[in-house]
Amino acid sequence: MSVGDVARIGTRTPWHGPPRSGARLEHRDGGVCAVRGVRAAATIAGLKPSGAPDLALVDAGRVVTAAGVQTSNQVAAAPVRLTAQHLAAGRARAVLLNSGSANACTGQAGAAAAETSAAAIADLLGCAPEEILLASTGVIGVPLDVDLLVGALPTLVGGLSAQGSAAAADAIRTTDTVAKEAAVEVTDAEGTCVVGGIAKGSGMINPAMATMLAVIVTDADLDAATARSLLGAAVDATFNRTSVDGCMSTNDAVLLLATGSAQTPGSAQSPSPAAVADGLTAVCGALAERIVRDGEGAGRFVRLTVEGAQDDGEALAVARAVADSALVRTAVAGADPNWGRVIGAVGAAPARIDPDRIAIRFGDVEVCRHGVARAFDRTAAAAALVGPDVALTVDLGLAAGSATLLTCDLTHDYVTINAEYTT
Amino acid sequence: MSVGDVARIGTRTPWHGPPRSGARLEHRDGGVCAVRGVRAAATIAGLKPSGAPDLALVDAGRVVTAAGVQTSNQVAAAPVRLTAQHLAAGRARAVLLNSGSANACTGQAGAAAAETSAAAIADLLGCAPEEILLASTGVIGVPLDVDLLVGALPTLVGGLSAQGSAAAADAIRTTDTVAKEAAVEVTDAEGTCVVGGIAKGSGMINPAMATMLAVIVTDADLDAATARSLLGAAVDATFNRTSVDGCMSTNDAVLLLATGSAQTPGSAQSPSPAAVADGLTAVCGALAERIVRDGEGAGRFVRLTVEGAQDDGEALAVARAVADSALVRTAVAGADPNWGRVIGAVGAAPARIDPDRIAIRFGDVEVCRHGVARAFDRTAAAAALVGPDVALTVDLGLAAGSATLLTCDLTHDYVTINAEYTT
Repeated sequence: MSVGDVARIGTRTPWHGPPRSGARLEHRDGGVCAVRGVRAAATIAGLKPSGAPDLALVDAGRVVTAAGVQTSNQVAAAPVRLTAQHLAAGRARAVLLNSGSANACTGQAGAAAAETSAAAIADLLGCAPEEILLASTGVIGVPLDVDLLVGALPTLVGGLSAQGSAAAADAIRTTDTVAKEAAVEVTDAEGTCVVGGIAKGSGMINPAMATMLAVIVTDADLDAATARSLLGAAVDATFNRTSVDGCMSTNDAVLLLATGSAQTPGSAQSPSPAAVADGLTAVCGALAERIVRDGEGAGRFVRLTVEGAQDDGEALAVARAVADSALVRTAVAGADPNWGRVIGAVGAAPARIDPDRIAIRFGDVEVCRHGVARAFDRTAAAAALVGPDVALTVDLGLAAGSATLLTCDLTHDYVTINAEYTT
Repeated sequence: MSVGDVARIGTRTPWHGPPRSGARLEHRDGGVCAVRGVRAAATIAGLKPSGAPDLALVDAGRVVTAAGVQTSNQVAAAPVRLTAQHLAAGRARAVLLNSGSANACTGQAGAAAAETSAAAIADLLGCAPEEILLASTGVIGVPLDVDLLVGALPTLVGGLSAQGSAAAADAIRTTDTVAKEAAVEVTDAEGTCVVGGIAKGSGMINPAMATMLAVIVTDADLDAATARSLLGAAVDATFNRTSVDGCMSTNDAVLLLATGSAQTPGSAQSPSPAAVADGLTAVCGALAERIVRDGEGAGRFVRLTVEGAQDDGEALAVARAVADSALVRTAVAGADPNWGRVIGAVGAAPARIDPDRIAIRFGDVEVCRHGVARAFDRTAAAAALVGPDVALTVDLGLAAGSATLLTCDLTHDYVTINAEYTT
């Protein structure tokens, strides 16, 4: 799959459901550069032993509204901590991202490296260091070679272009097998905006928070509080509904730049906040789905739906218990409709259940009803599991609470990737 | 490893520490039959497609004090529910165990099968059905063929003997590669008793509760309340400190029969409750360690210690987060001293930590100090990981709280076992 070969969004119902605002969403090419005035670039600083691109920049061209959702891991990387400080003002110009080093657990030297990086790129762009957001990904505990990084910045800035999104998406990969971009144009009665994004993520993907790196940009006109609120809701509905391996990273961050350039002075051409929210959710959702499809070693993508729960929160708790079950995920790898493992995970979840009301379906094949085996066509059930897309539904039969979580199977390749290499 | 080839206990410090009571513990052969008057048997009922032994009985010979710790999974199997009722009186004569069917998620038919089984074995032994405890293990959702089971009971009872423990331990295996027995003689100033046990367990092993099947017997004289209390404490210190895959079974149970036959009328020959507690903890601990060593696909046994926590509970929370990390467990499989994955799991745990105070050791090799990489001999660190026994220590550097958890690596064989077979 090439960098640009991403499934079109907007032409089908997003996994999280249709836009709530009634806005119209249309797919756009170009990732972050689908937004007017946003330029991106990538280069090779030499941080990756492979010599692959490892440095990326997304530049809004001027200081704009900024918001972020970052890891809740208590062991937060230096760039996460510095960016949290810079986000306090709600304004930023650009996001500098590197792969090849997470700059996590690197002590004072790591904090200094992050500050030096921010100052150096700010100097080149002509803004304040506090107007730079940073994100790093790679092996934890390895010192960041800040001289290599800073030495590559003039080339990086010189390469900024309105066609640079794909290269930036490529440069932030670690174990990702594909680069991840998405963009939509959002239109409602009030106006039109574009939302675009890039992301990386493949392992250490856990639903407890942001779970990877992503940069989202929009030309919608948002103040900082609205940007924070809309991004938080979009992340909660998308990236936070995924799980590859239940492991929470030290470096997760989703960063948003809102340029406001859709807003013509004196008129209101930005769509409504609800429509912007739908655009953000669509882009975050598309990127989240690509991350799970590219989960380390994943052979099958699982759309897990829990319905009939007492409320949506309990549905999500049950979905997380099922998605985090190594036994369920190895059964999916083996195309085995082993619903006993599913119901075992359901029973261990912190949620109200009645075992006698539970139904379980693989695709359209109901394998368990009222908590007991239903006579089912084993061949049909296995058929629902052999393809690259698996739908698994648990109906608790109690009330109307529901949740959808995206996950993948646990395969030999996951073990190989994580046992044989330091990642 | 043959059935009888179990590591001797009492000749070394148990993994959970020395006896707290100061009692002397000595290894005994014979598993449950190390206790005078206890007989055991096994036979083939035909519940396993392989035709291997699948039915076991442990008989105290008369009605004695009984206690149990059972799964907290809300989807509890029929034998778990019936046994919970029978345990209410704190008295039982025998434990009937089958492999080949978990009799979980089997509805009214499953409940009836459990009741029929209890009534049939009670009739043969000459006791009340309420004096029988039941335990089942196997595939969830498969109906238990109660006719096969009941048909095999006369042969089972006819085979009861004081040498039957190893056969019973063998018959309750599912994916276990070895049968698991342990026994100790406990002596203090007040007297002497014997504690013996058998267990099964290999996958679906989670530290949130009992996590497998075990039958423990002792000739100590305990009332029901004391038996419950001592068993609960022993289980919490042993079986609840293990994790193979973080998956909680529907069928977990640890059942205790205390015959009181160490007690000669008119004199106090049983040791003190504290000494009995040490005996129970030693036997439960030995069985727990064997379960983890026999973890599905396990190549390495990991003794994970967290120290320096604010309290023991937080130490345990951190240990569970590390033990449940698929990335840590695949790193151990690859003999990779990847401490970044360990500290990432620590940071995600629900416990107070200061990233700048964390130290991490593989064996004796400190790889991280003050939360950052320590210059270490990579060869020595890898050497601490290549053998079958790995010691991983996380020092939070805050206070005196500590906990030890037993876990194993996550290997290709775990995926093979659970992807390629319905277990």
